[in-house]
Amino acid sequence: MSRRDEDILRDKCGVFGIWGVEKPAEYVYLGLHNLQHRGQESCGIVTTSSRKFYSYFGMGIVNEIFTAEILHGLNGRAAIGHNRYSTKGSSNIENTQPLIAETRNGEVAIAHNGQFANYRSLKKELQEEGCIFKTDSDTEIILHKFARSKEKNISRIISASFTGVKPAYSALLLTRKELIAVRDPSGVRPLVIGRVGTGFVVASETTAFDIIGAEYIDEVKPGELVIIDDNGLSREELQPPGEELRCIFEYIYFARPDSFLFGSEVSTSEIRKELGRRLYREHPVEADIVIPVPDSSTAAALGYSRESGIPFDFGLIRSHYIGRTFIEPTQAIRDAKVRKKYNPNRSVIRDRRVVLVEDSVVRGTTLKNLIRILRDFGAREIHIRVSSPPYRYSCYLGINTAETSRLIASRYSVEKICSFLAADSLGYLSEQGLLDNKYLHGGFCTYCFNGKQKI
Amino acid sequence: MSRRDEDILRDKCGVFGIWGVEKPAEYVYLGLHNLQHRGQESCGIVTTSSRKFYSYFGMGIVNEIFTAEILHGLNGRAAIGHNRYSTKGSSNIENTQPLIAETRNGEVAIAHNGQFANYRSLKKELQEEGCIFKTDSDTEIILHKFARSKEKNISRIISASFTGVKPAYSALLLTRKELIAVRDPSGVRPLVIGRVGTGFVVASETTAFDIIGAEYIDEVKPGELVIIDDNGLSREELQPPGEELRCIFEYIYFARPDSFLFGSEVSTSEIRKELGRRLYREHPVEADIVIPVPDSSTAAALGYSRESGIPFDFGLIRSHYIGRTFIEPTQAIRDAKVRKKYNPNRSVIRDRRVVLVEDSVVRGTTLKNLIRILRDFGAREIHIRVSSPPYRYSCYLGINTAETSRLIASRYSVEKICSFLAADSLGYLSEQGLLDNKYLHGGFCTYCFNGKQKI
Amino acid sequence: MSRRDEDILRDKCGVFGIWGVEKPAEYVYLGLHNLQHRGQESCGIVTTSSRKFYSYFGMGIVNEIFTAEILHGLNGRAAIGHNRYSTKGSSNIENTQPLIAETRNGEVAIAHNGQFANYRSLKKELQEEGCIFKTDSDTEIILHKFARSKEKNISRIISASFTGVKPAYSALLLTRKELIAVRDPSGVRPLVIGRVGTGFVVASETTAFDIIGAEYIDEVKPGELVIIDDNGLSREELQPPGEELRCIFEYIYFARPDSFLFGSEVSTSEIRKELGRRLYREHPVEADIVIPVPDSSTAAALGYSRESGIPFDFGLIRSHYIGRTFIEPTQAIRDAKVRKKYNPNRSVIRDRRVVLVEDSVVRGTTLKNLIRILRDFGAREIHIRVSSPPYRYSCYLGINTAETSRLIASRYSVEKICSFLAADSLGYLSEQGLLDNKYLHGGFCTYCFNGKQKI
Amino acid sequence: MSRRDEDILRDKCGVFGIWGVEKPAEYVYLGLHNLQHRGQESCGIVTTSSRKFYSYFGMGIVNEIFTAEILHGLNGRAAIGHNRYSTKGSSNIENTQPLIAETRNGEVAIAHNGQFANYRSLKKELQEEGCIFKTDSDTEIILHKFARSKEKNISRIISASFTGVKPAYSALLLTRKELIAVRDPSGVRPLVIGRVGTGFVVASETTAFDIIGAEYIDEVKPGELVIIDDNGLSREELQPPGEELRCIFEYIYFARPDSFLFGSEVSTSEIRKELGRRLYREHPVEADIVIPVPDSSTAAALGYSRESGIPFDFGLIRSHYIGRTFIEPTQAIRDAKVRKKYNPNRSVIRDRRVVLVEDSVVRGTTLKNLIRILRDFGAREIHIRVSSPPYRYSCYLGINTAETSRLIASRYSVEKICSFLAADSLGYLSEQGLLDNKYLHGGFCTYCFNGKQKI
Repeated sequence: MSRRDEDILRDKCGVFGIWGVEKPAEYVYLGLHNLQHRGQESCGIVTTSSRKFYSYFGMGIVNEIFTAEILHGLNGRAAIGHNRYSTKGSSNIENTQPLIAETRNGEVAIAHNGQFANYRSLKKELQEEGCIFKTDSDTEIILHKFARSKEKNISRIISASFTGVKPAYSALLLTRKELIAVRDPSGVRPLVIGRVGTGFVVASETTAFDIIGAEYIDEVKPGELVIIDDNGLSREELQPPGEELRCIFEYIYFARPDSFLFGSEVSTSEIRKELGRRLYREHPVEADIVIPVPDSSTAAALGYSRESGIPFDFGLIRSHYIGRTFIEPTQAIRDAKVRKKYNPNRSVIRDRRVVLVEDSVVRGTTLKNLIRILRDFGAREIHIRVSSPPYRYSCYLGINTAETSRLIASRYSVEKICSFLAADSLGYLSEQGLLDNKYLHGGFCTYCFNGKQKI
Repeated sequence: MSRRDEDILRDKCGVFGIWGVEKPAEYVYLGLHNLQHRGQESCGIVTTSSRKFYSYFGMGIVNEIFTAEILHGLNGRAAIGHNRYSTKGSSNIENTQPLIAETRNGEVAIAHNGQFANYRSLKKELQEEGCIFKTDSDTEIILHKFARSKEKNISRIISASFTGVKPAYSALLLTRKELIAVRDPSGVRPLVIGRVGTGFVVASETTAFDIIGAEYIDEVKPGELVIIDDNGLSREELQPPGEELRCIFEYIYFARPDSFLFGSEVSTSEIRKELGRRLYREHPVEADIVIPVPDSSTAAALGYSRESGIPFDFGLIRSHYIGRTFIEPTQAIRDAKVRKKYNPNRSVIRDRRVVLVEDSVVRGTTLKNLIRILRDFGAREIHIRVSSPPYRYSCYLGINTAETSRLIASRYSVEKICSFLAADSLGYLSEQGLLDNKYLHGGFCTYCFNGKQKI
Repeated sequence: MSRRDEDILRDKCGVFGIWGVEKPAEYVYLGLHNLQHRGQESCGIVTTSSRKFYSYFGMGIVNEIFTAEILHGLNGRAAIGHNRYSTKGSSNIENTQPLIAETRNGEVAIAHNGQFANYRSLKKELQEEGCIFKTDSDTEIILHKFARSKEKNISRIISASFTGVKPAYSALLLTRKELIAVRDPSGVRPLVIGRVGTGFVVASETTAFDIIGAEYIDEVKPGELVIIDDNGLSREELQPPGEELRCIFEYIYFARPDSFLFGSEVSTSEIRKELGRRLYREHPVEADIVIPVPDSSTAAALGYSRESGIPFDFGLIRSHYIGRTFIEPTQAIRDAKVRKKYNPNRSVIRDRRVVLVEDSVVRGTTLKNLIRILRDFGAREIHIRVSSPPYRYSCYLGINTAETSRLIASRYSVEKICSFLAADSLGYLSEQGLLDNKYLHGGFCTYCFNGKQKI
Repeated sequence: MSRRDEDILRDKCGVFGIWGVEKPAEYVYLGLHNLQHRGQESCGIVTTSSRKFYSYFGMGIVNEIFTAEILHGLNGRAAIGHNRYSTKGSSNIENTQPLIAETRNGEVAIAHNGQFANYRSLKKELQEEGCIFKTDSDTEIILHKFARSKEKNISRIISASFTGVKPAYSALLLTRKELIAVRDPSGVRPLVIGRVGTGFVVASETTAFDIIGAEYIDEVKPGELVIIDDNGLSREELQPPGEELRCIFEYIYFARPDSFLFGSEVSTSEIRKELGRRLYREHPVEADIVIPVPDSSTAAALGYSRESGIPFDFGLIRSHYIGRTFIEPTQAIRDAKVRKKYNPNRSVIRDRRVVLVEDSVVRGTTLKNLIRILRDFGAREIHIRVSSPPYRYSCYLGINTAETSRLIASRYSVEKICSFLAADSLGYLSEQGLLDNKYLHGGFCTYCFNGKQKI
């Protein structure tokens, strides 16, 4: 994989599919709402009757886009939907998923979470064969391979569509006859199956099942192909499972605290609390109060508090009105960006020795800002505790972060980061400490910590 | 051509392209504005530098969509743009042109006016070869053929892209290195070339040149391929010219009165005045006043007036505020639709014998309505004169009209139409009279009058 | 009246009221549509049941603002509506009419066309008495006077509301029990009464009656107060009629050609044709063609053509897509503003001696531009004929034009204007010629031509 | 006060004012952002130079309404702004504050938080004197009184404006020369003063100071009038202070946890934690976990946890994407409303004895719903603890809640409420327990608990 493969990173997204219910678009609406944290830029829903596709797409969040009238027009008994993550560059309606194509093998729609490690070479290969590309999304590759397959049977067509495609992918496809779920052999992104009434659902996270009253059945296994149609659900091997490379950042940061991921028996919040407990054992400190950078670090901070016995509290109040990325209108307001999101609670931190728990540190600028503000508001000491190892390598499997060279941990030692942040102490959870977690089983990708590429 | 070929009709549209100027998007903006009568549903502009494409699309008219900020972002020295006609069905952003694709042969954009008589079989063939279709536009076919061509040279790639494609098409393509214009061998839709400063322009009608101060050079000839690049303009044969089948309705109704079309030496208004003169000679009547259904029939009415000596006037006042199709909010307001567009001028028609000139009659319902209103306002006699022959067959080359079975002239004799309309007399221009026009040279498609298919 | 009284000029507007029908808002919608030429910036509708007011306001034209849902919510059996003219300054929703107020004398709404010559002193007086002003509209004055009246009877309250208020005003007021129409004693602005079914309507122009099938009864006379309630219509004197100062520009330019104004027995277009005839008699010329600046000068040009025998034609094609004031996005496009509105029809003017008829000349810049363009397109001679006298004084009764110092006729002689315009000749209709018109009866305000103030 | 006085309740709102800085609108933008929790329906900013007012208003939240261009147009060196609360009825742009009026005493703008207990009689009185009312807001009353005052001096004019006006009000007024802050003699709503650079600020809560780096000086005292101009800040008595009736619900629910209110020396979160501690002492229970209804009850739950030793956790995950009231498009989605806002975290509650802390219970339906969901997700026992007394009387000082008859505590005993909710136990904090709080000093209005009216 060349360096250029990294320059279009687009992920995390949320996908949701359903088969065999009345008004499927309403289920997708609710499911996507509970997956909204995985992408707020745009969303789309495609439904199908046995005869026809219906679709609608918009920029923004589910709540804003789908009116009664629009939902009413999305007919049929099956559907898939997609929340897209706000990447910096090409924020436009053309990139909104699900993508739809009319092909020799019928009409097909796809909603995809992930990014193919080899998408540049796949794209080039298909272009050489005369394919046209209309979006700057790698998802289109699957549509071409679907259209070009000469297999007769849907499971073989899908297999062919993913042959030669490297992880990461957790994707849903919809035809007039089937809802299909596939997950790459390394199982990088999550994908779970459930049942609601007589229908089946597939989603990125279990929280999407909770809101519609669906019952969790199992995850789609790495390398598995699941086909759901009016005869029920069948599971087969898409590709032989490879080394498990599940994204550890789903547990650290991405997933909702109430979701059960990767087959774990507890919700993500419990794993984060364990990370916080271990973090204290690795990096104890004498302090008066443990506070999180809300909301993503709340569970880890609770764990740190419980293990240490230092009281937990909210020393930073997060605004409810910064859910989405608004363009800050003037320089003065841009400068206040961190303050617009977080305000210190003076009574909680004044004259206190504060442990500030953060889930991860990318470029360090926001954290530096927060530390300065906390000091301005009277914190006596500020000890940073990070519930994951130093983030040193920019993801090659689709997570959209700063380039490696701009990651603070790729440039500085922990000591230097601490002095850059102007913190009183800084402790990162060790990689060993991360993986030793009692709730974690199986393999994870830890490339971002150690730079060891496996695909 | 099977009947099914007619069920997706989409045309007329306006196209505009420019090569070799600063801020090309501003020229396209102005050019599309003067082509706005050819399509008001949506529009788009694609520009290119030698390195990159820039594009923007929107629903509505040019004036509403392109802000200073958007135009500012459309960089480069060349551009193409497109106005899309409002068809009933699939009014959505995905169908907006120009279409763009990334291909083995480079990035390419296309803006197309026309419809391929054999698009269903072309589409099926390409699907069989594994192509995917994302819009319900036939234009996508050219992108696939462009991408699949193994020719090395742009003129041969373009030739290959249109091989086997039947009329009608007048299309502009843009790559990072060339602006390309092609016109089908029958020359169904117009396409003209001009020069502005050191740059070249291509557009559907000459009125788009006038607004930017461009000078008309020539039309793109039927079957011609024009390539414009930094070395200038070259013209070659795309396909051997076939029987000329230029759309006679461009002269009768579609084109702006100030445009010079199909190489004619006078503007469209002059041709329409001639039709009006001949119409009087074929169908004289004693009357007090000649009035048009404004604005499309104004020139024909002027001709009728001049030939007959009966004074010309405006007996129907057209609202300026009905340019685009608004959804009428309630039944009462829907019922008033014709009255919202036209109001009689009582002083002009009261107690008068009125000749009402109309350019063509499709279903007859609007005209029947107008006649009733004119009588309500005091017209003593109403003589309908139509400046084209009875419209009997729904177009098979892309004009979006009612189905043949709903065309009043396909169901009734002229006599019966007259009595349906409740007019005092009704006269249609004869096909001979239409074609005898002193300004018309060469061949025209008259399928809609006589049902004789030539492609 | 001090000079400062002129610096906020706001007019012409359109008003429409109806009493005693089902779904009155739909009638207002249609009526305002046909009065749209009197104001395109914003509009509003207020309806009333016997118990409650309902209202909706928006920026833009009627077609764009009132959806089915909004109209559905406008209950009751009576309504008034208003189209506001787009003045440059304070284009905002607060100034949208009808204005509504809750007062001791009940809830009241007002829609007003005109401007009070003494509004500054009225406003100051009311402010001195403790009144607050929330809009920069003089209409609010009437609401205050209405609220402060201690009369018990509606006709006396209305009388009191207009006591001391100088022209110009043609206003509609709505209470839960009455629709009221008043017109100033000089009759500056038009106002007409009609009947539709069992209901009554009042509007700025008769064209608003035509679209709803209402029958014209009479104009509201100068100084008259008309009260319509469930007992019918009663007419009384609001104030003793003064010298008639009807705005001559309603006939020259403002009104729709199909409207009957100021009690005249022919429509406005006939009066304009007479102006054109007289214009020829005053300023004959040898020429090949007479063309109007469309659409406002079309009738005058027809008159000039008929009187002179020189053929009438359209040498300038007006775009249908410039109905409203769009902000031109870039300098180049701003420079093309006149060309976006009018394009020459080369075949009509090339090598011809052209008479260009215009209804009036304010600053002269647009006309100069048109003349240049016509020459560029080959016109041999260009003779300007203006169907009104030189416009020398900025209106003091509410018409929003350039300041007197920017009026070309206030600065230059006709000879100099001709040379500024670069026209071959220039002829203005004389004031005598204007008023001699066979269809005009009674008095008119001609301040803008001669500077003689009468109020 | 008659029953009818309660039927238009509108409050809580947020106000912010600043004097003596460059670009005051940017400060207001940030201040209103941190007061956004006090109102999300609409907001407005008025700025003033010494010569002119500038203003802008919009529906929605600050982040969405104020673009760079709009802020740029809001000139001057002083400003006030307002966030309006979303009341059910009249959600429209006309009611947006600040209100502006032109008066004999100059131009004035007002931003108001509160509602006058005697507003109906005040309004009637003013109407009797001839005043007009254009909004359904009581704020307009002050504008009328301001305009009618014959005092010469601004402090006397303001005094006159509030003479006879009963609480509750905390208001900001802006003239071209002064920023004025007033608070009613009972001090019902909060209002605080700060300093930023050489300028002064006034706001509803201190959190608005934090974001702009302003320093808290003092609260505006009950009955105080504060005038800020270029000479600095002066404080005087508006009206003699009356019995303190500060709204206890600011502490229980309204204010941000990081705000310092009513002169207290700790932030609101600390007071809420104390309520939680006392709540445990009054209503202890054996349980495994204490969870809040996030976010408003988080601090009280922390207090309960600390006092009881039962671990604190998040058993309900609140969606970040429900900040504002979206219209739920279909019945099924409306039914899922509570689930869209809160999702149980199964791992936290399954097989546990849960204490669910809520700050207050109005109608009880949401809480009942939450209890059912928690049981569905496996909670073994659910003990409800409410950190305020039973809410029995609908506020008469401007808080917009359900009518008294729909308040569950006005209809049922605690026992019955517990059985209605289907909770295992239910404990409300006593009124004594509420007021005994070590951080609370001075008097509070507790009408909603005991029905004792003091004004």
